[in-house]
Amino acid sequence: MNRVVSIPRIAFRALVTAALNEDLGSGDITTAACIDRQSTGRAEVRAREPLVLCGTDLVREVFLQLDTGVVVTCDRLDGDLLEAGERALTVAGPAASILEGERVALNFVQRMSAIATRTRAFVSALPSNCRTRIADTRKTTPLLRALERYAVRCGGGHNHRENLTAAILIKDNHIAACGGVRSAIERARTFAPHTSRITCEVASMDELVTAIAAGADVVMLDNFEDAILPEAVALVAGRALVEVSGRISLERVPVIAAAGVDVISVGSITHSAGSVDLGLDWAS
Amino acid sequence: MNRVVSIPRIAFRALVTAALNEDLGSGDITTAACIDRQSTGRAEVRAREPLVLCGTDLVREVFLQLDTGVVVTCDRLDGDLLEAGERALTVAGPAASILEGERVALNFVQRMSAIATRTRAFVSALPSNCRTRIADTRKTTPLLRALERYAVRCGGGHNHRENLTAAILIKDNHIAACGGVRSAIERARTFAPHTSRITCEVASMDELVTAIAAGADVVMLDNFEDAILPEAVALVAGRALVEVSGRISLERVPVIAAAGVDVISVGSITHSAGSVDLGLDWAS
Amino acid sequence: MNRVVSIPRIAFRALVTAALNEDLGSGDITTAACIDRQSTGRAEVRAREPLVLCGTDLVREVFLQLDTGVVVTCDRLDGDLLEAGERALTVAGPAASILEGERVALNFVQRMSAIATRTRAFVSALPSNCRTRIADTRKTTPLLRALERYAVRCGGGHNHRENLTAAILIKDNHIAACGGVRSAIERARTFAPHTSRITCEVASMDELVTAIAAGADVVMLDNFEDAILPEAVALVAGRALVEVSGRISLERVPVIAAAGVDVISVGSITHSAGSVDLGLDWAS
Amino acid sequence: MNRVVSIPRIAFRALVTAALNEDLGSGDITTAACIDRQSTGRAEVRAREPLVLCGTDLVREVFLQLDTGVVVTCDRLDGDLLEAGERALTVAGPAASILEGERVALNFVQRMSAIATRTRAFVSALPSNCRTRIADTRKTTPLLRALERYAVRCGGGHNHRENLTAAILIKDNHIAACGGVRSAIERARTFAPHTSRITCEVASMDELVTAIAAGADVVMLDNFEDAILPEAVALVAGRALVEVSGRISLERVPVIAAAGVDVISVGSITHSAGSVDLGLDWAS
Amino acid sequence: MNRVVSIPRIAFRALVTAALNEDLGSGDITTAACIDRQSTGRAEVRAREPLVLCGTDLVREVFLQLDTGVVVTCDRLDGDLLEAGERALTVAGPAASILEGERVALNFVQRMSAIATRTRAFVSALPSNCRTRIADTRKTTPLLRALERYAVRCGGGHNHRENLTAAILIKDNHIAACGGVRSAIERARTFAPHTSRITCEVASMDELVTAIAAGADVVMLDNFEDAILPEAVALVAGRALVEVSGRISLERVPVIAAAGVDVISVGSITHSAGSVDLGLDWAS
Amino acid sequence: MNRVVSIPRIAFRALVTAALNEDLGSGDITTAACIDRQSTGRAEVRAREPLVLCGTDLVREVFLQLDTGVVVTCDRLDGDLLEAGERALTVAGPAASILEGERVALNFVQRMSAIATRTRAFVSALPSNCRTRIADTRKTTPLLRALERYAVRCGGGHNHRENLTAAILIKDNHIAACGGVRSAIERARTFAPHTSRITCEVASMDELVTAIAAGADVVMLDNFEDAILPEAVALVAGRALVEVSGRISLERVPVIAAAGVDVISVGSITHSAGSVDLGLDWAS
Repeated sequence: MNRVVSIPRIAFRALVTAALNEDLGSGDITTAACIDRQSTGRAEVRAREPLVLCGTDLVREVFLQLDTGVVVTCDRLDGDLLEAGERALTVAGPAASILEGERVALNFVQRMSAIATRTRAFVSALPSNCRTRIADTRKTTPLLRALERYAVRCGGGHNHRENLTAAILIKDNHIAACGGVRSAIERARTFAPHTSRITCEVASMDELVTAIAAGADVVMLDNFEDAILPEAVALVAGRALVEVSGRISLERVPVIAAAGVDVISVGSITHSAGSVDLGLDWAS
Repeated sequence: MNRVVSIPRIAFRALVTAALNEDLGSGDITTAACIDRQSTGRAEVRAREPLVLCGTDLVREVFLQLDTGVVVTCDRLDGDLLEAGERALTVAGPAASILEGERVALNFVQRMSAIATRTRAFVSALPSNCRTRIADTRKTTPLLRALERYAVRCGGGHNHRENLTAAILIKDNHIAACGGVRSAIERARTFAPHTSRITCEVASMDELVTAIAAGADVVMLDNFEDAILPEAVALVAGRALVEVSGRISLERVPVIAAAGVDVISVGSITHSAGSVDLGLDWAS
Repeated sequence: MNRVVSIPRIAFRALVTAALNEDLGSGDITTAACIDRQSTGRAEVRAREPLVLCGTDLVREVFLQLDTGVVVTCDRLDGDLLEAGERALTVAGPAASILEGERVALNFVQRMSAIATRTRAFVSALPSNCRTRIADTRKTTPLLRALERYAVRCGGGHNHRENLTAAILIKDNHIAACGGVRSAIERARTFAPHTSRITCEVASMDELVTAIAAGADVVMLDNFEDAILPEAVALVAGRALVEVSGRISLERVPVIAAAGVDVISVGSITHSAGSVDLGLDWAS
Repeated sequence: MNRVVSIPRIAFRALVTAALNEDLGSGDITTAACIDRQSTGRAEVRAREPLVLCGTDLVREVFLQLDTGVVVTCDRLDGDLLEAGERALTVAGPAASILEGERVALNFVQRMSAIATRTRAFVSALPSNCRTRIADTRKTTPLLRALERYAVRCGGGHNHRENLTAAILIKDNHIAACGGVRSAIERARTFAPHTSRITCEVASMDELVTAIAAGADVVMLDNFEDAILPEAVALVAGRALVEVSGRISLERVPVIAAAGVDVISVGSITHSAGSVDLGLDWAS
Repeated sequence: MNRVVSIPRIAFRALVTAALNEDLGSGDITTAACIDRQSTGRAEVRAREPLVLCGTDLVREVFLQLDTGVVVTCDRLDGDLLEAGERALTVAGPAASILEGERVALNFVQRMSAIATRTRAFVSALPSNCRTRIADTRKTTPLLRALERYAVRCGGGHNHRENLTAAILIKDNHIAACGGVRSAIERARTFAPHTSRITCEVASMDELVTAIAAGADVVMLDNFEDAILPEAVALVAGRALVEVSGRISLERVPVIAAAGVDVISVGSITHSAGSVDLGLDWAS
Repeated sequence: MNRVVSIPRIAFRALVTAALNEDLGSGDITTAACIDRQSTGRAEVRAREPLVLCGTDLVREVFLQLDTGVVVTCDRLDGDLLEAGERALTVAGPAASILEGERVALNFVQRMSAIATRTRAFVSALPSNCRTRIADTRKTTPLLRALERYAVRCGGGHNHRENLTAAILIKDNHIAACGGVRSAIERARTFAPHTSRITCEVASMDELVTAIAAGADVVMLDNFEDAILPEAVALVAGRALVEVSGRISLERVPVIAAAGVDVISVGSITHSAGSVDLGLDWAS
């Protein structure tokens, strides 16, 4: 069956068009000057460092929009682990079109693969056979959230709520405005679609007790000491999912997971993944 | 006078609308449930680590589009260096609107400030009184190029060509297709607007000699050993600008600059800047 | 506190622009011919039949986009019940602009109020003090889902999942493809964000038992006889929410609710609400 | 020859994209979890009640945009009358893509067919061999006017002016502002393209006389008693088209038509058509 | 009363945004480098040759979108005749913003005024007191039709049908396909909204007779010799409007008008108007 | 090799969609009424006067978007000189689709060919074997700049900077604000990307001397008498490119070129090119 939920092409087609127009302007004047339109070639995209591949559909779409004469052949799938030097895909067709699309295609795949790779690192830090999830946050690049959430899935992570409509997440300000955890959860329950869980952030063991009593579906432990997590998990006793969030480092992951929490949400897998090195080289 | 070329609001207004719609969906159900529409508040955006501020206009635009009743007051300007704890700006008005815009505003300003901060680090690594520029590349986030180029300027860097139409940059494939550096430069000269300079990438001292002889305006030294740079600069002798590119680390910057090159272009200031920590906290 | 979650203006601004351009074309030639641009007037939007008002923000936006000189004053709020003849709002300013926006404004408010009114009828059919919700479905008008879901909330109803990403709803085809209810729920659990509940449609008491055992958060009873509902609810015994769907008539609502189900989802509150009669008349 | 003027694909392509993005979000997580991408199937769209089919091009476009591997085969044409149980079209290809597009496709075709069906009911109420037209109004769903006008044509109805630019329609406010029917018509004549007819709404026999004398091309009788229509038609004596509008019920149609009027315009064929029952079922 | 039907701002707002983005890119680097953001100034737009002014709303919109601090004051109205040297409007505010918007504003107003001016020349060539109209055609610049039709009105001309939906115009191919004028007109009558007139192009006196007999509302005489026009007009005898089209020169206008035709449609008033000289100069 | 830099399809696809929607509205009612959908035909686009062909890709795109069954075959290439009567391209397929796209296709190709033709006239006025370029300006039609710049290239001309971001052009206001030519050039140098040349407009021989001394890459001589140009060129002595601009007539071109200037920029090749006569006729 499917390994990850892929993104429908309709969700990124306009994005690719905009990215191409951003980079091409009204045409690549260097390539037009130097490369004969009839000239063809074959180029390979290879990993230049170990990485989790992500974004092959974007590469395909970039070249499809530029020139239907370019053929993109994938050697590997999104989510695959590539060693340095391994080939991810091949791009063959008019040389000018390949040169014109190269940068945009790489800009997508380098960033998405970086997120998948960083997510995989966090997932790999989990103890084996543990059911704890690594999840993303809303700290994504504006306009690229769907792509970045997909990259997280390719890295073995899970997604948090998609946006502010998709689920309830009660934070300190909401609690303060409602006069307490119980009231906030009750109000949220009244408004939320019955298909959404109610997550409540708690800052202390007392708030945790109240949140559970008020029927929170998920409790998000905010800045709890790692040492106190087992006690918190024991207190919840399966009545809610337990999520831990806030400045999660790779080192903390096994500790937090060992405490039995259900979800560790990590902003840095999207906001600080940077770029991995994938290059396009012409095949001789 | 102006410190940097700012971006016209018209160039990012639609981007902010799209980012807000991406995050808000059809409404923030948690805030709607818990926060009274009449309730007001004041929140402060502060640096939580030392950073170069960038993106205040985006913060302003986010809240302007959400609710004209929110007032954004900037304490500091884009390009300013902030210490951890310093306040960048204040957001005051309806509490619900502030909560609804918080994440999008931070997503912009954290990324843009990270680019400005990383650029500043490279600029600071230049020897004092040297005229070498740190420049960006086309390795920017799709759809955010204008913002990221601006962030580079805020960090004290300079921009490279905006897109494939804006200037000529002859690379190895172009040279190969034209049968040599001279022919490529001549062809490019014929096509390029007279307002654009011709940059030619060279891979050896021989190609450098040819490129200068063919009248390149800028020569881009590709993977030259640092030790050979002074000789290359001497060979050019002011007849063209000298640009160095490729895997530039902070450590190499003073060495390269000391060789007398004009431009060091650094992909990582945009593609690997990640995010700096700026937080929005409610003022008591 | 807030009665309903309102829609952010950013979510319907472009929609109103498109609607105005659709109706105005390149200008209202009749009004331009006949009405002096300096002429002003005051018009009132009144209910011509009993209805639940919905869409006042759209009316405001229509006139704001057309002419900032038009002032819209709301006498009543979205969600209010109006008797025939009651005034909902007043529009004052340049007569030409009022005439130009009239039809678009009414097209929005008549449809949204119809949905709110129809929803209210279903909500009113619930026994008093019962906790059963009336919920909408994805059977909304293309491009108007956010507005129609809002109208449902104004009528006292609740929303179902916003779209196919927001939550899991396992239907017969999914069950068949997975080889059974248990396997489908397990697969869904693996993929779904932890913030989303898992709803599973069941077609028989046996499937219901399996779904509960497999840990469904919500069970949707598909075409169950009303008479069998109490037994189904008893069987679930609070381990999941119980939703009933499919050809729900006003008459069935109290029967279904009395069985103790949690949610009744009704496609017709959006797809067959039609239009209620609200008219714009000039005040003498 | 053609039975009705079809809509060019270019006029609804972007609409379908927007509708798909509205419903799919960043992907159908249930289908992705449960349905293997390689699995194929065949589903049939059948009428579940008697109806006039409309919107097959939209169904085709929905699946074309989602997945070019889905083949839509139409058994019947737009405008055809289907009995309950008759098959309208077949959709074959990847099962996941069919499930992902099902709701959007049905949302279009159920609404458009409802309008065609309701229009047909009004057309069928006309006496045989009469030349009276049933026409729509501008009371259409925002953004869907082109589709709804097409549905009216499929039901055997005719379209009124497309928008406020396409033709002149003088109403009471225009008359009042111009100081009378004659002046309003004259002003309108001066401004209108010579390709547009001038319609003037009249509220009394006196105004009708004036409008005819002033050269109106069409007179719209507003709230005239049915009994007085023959006299009005006789008075016009073929010098203008006679249109009747306002709260037209099916029962009044034969009476009004018998009076010899040319056009009966009916808002409810678009604004209150609701939805007809067409379902997609998997073929065994 | 109004002299011409103006275009609603909503119809050109997005156009101005696109035009500004086209010209500004990600910012005017020259102005940013040289002009202090605090510096203010006042500039005047003056005619540098005699012209009919058109496009002041576009100038206003350009600067409004760029900088709400720029104030545009119109000395003259659209449709006014200006002598060389006369001031059309004044633009005051931040000097940088004025420089940034100058070219886009002038590009609009120079083209629109050229169309108005050329139209006025044709209108002025009509004999005094004649009722013949000068009308435009669909030979307009792609995407600027609404603006160009407005410019025609400002020059004293009239508009033809707005687009292919707005009215019927039967040409030779349509006639051939239908097997003759009569059949084509009858088919067209069946399909056309009752608010639209039917225009039929005729190529001979025989076709003219047939078209009139078939009830054409407008007959368009295609390439009729000027000398034969009086006979054609006499033959029509007021039963239809008479339109003359095809390679209309200024010299032919009085001759054609004297024949008593109703409409002369002239492609060149839009497609060959070019640009008139209006300049922006800084006021000392 | 390539004769001119062509525009990527991605840069004009949305433009063609918008142009088609502008002209088609919700459908060509005349063609729908009169032309059978099954009917096919073949039409030819021929020059009706001598012209330089430009815009064949736009014609292809228009028909591709309308109906993939229409086949466009180009007999000649963009940039070719056609005599009156020569065939440019053939359009074959469904007759209705050809009629529906005819006007939009011609509107593009007639304008673009007019620009190419006018540009060729200026280029042809240059002395043989001279290296002087004819260049365009930013005086292009809003939203069509990329197409018009391409047409200039097809006519043998060159492009100036694409927009305000692409290069520096210092004008009188910039000089005044900076307190002189030297300061303006220095400031510009600091801000400009190193890939862009610095052009400085000069109004006198003195300013020219200063600009050269300050290191301008291009000097634009503003309103210099033709007689003084040789002296100016001699003074520059190859240290910068010399551009002449302002009210350039065909007659002045050989004189200016003979003075040895590098670039003559001509606004009228875009803003006053009008339209050339290319017609679509049905092949028997």
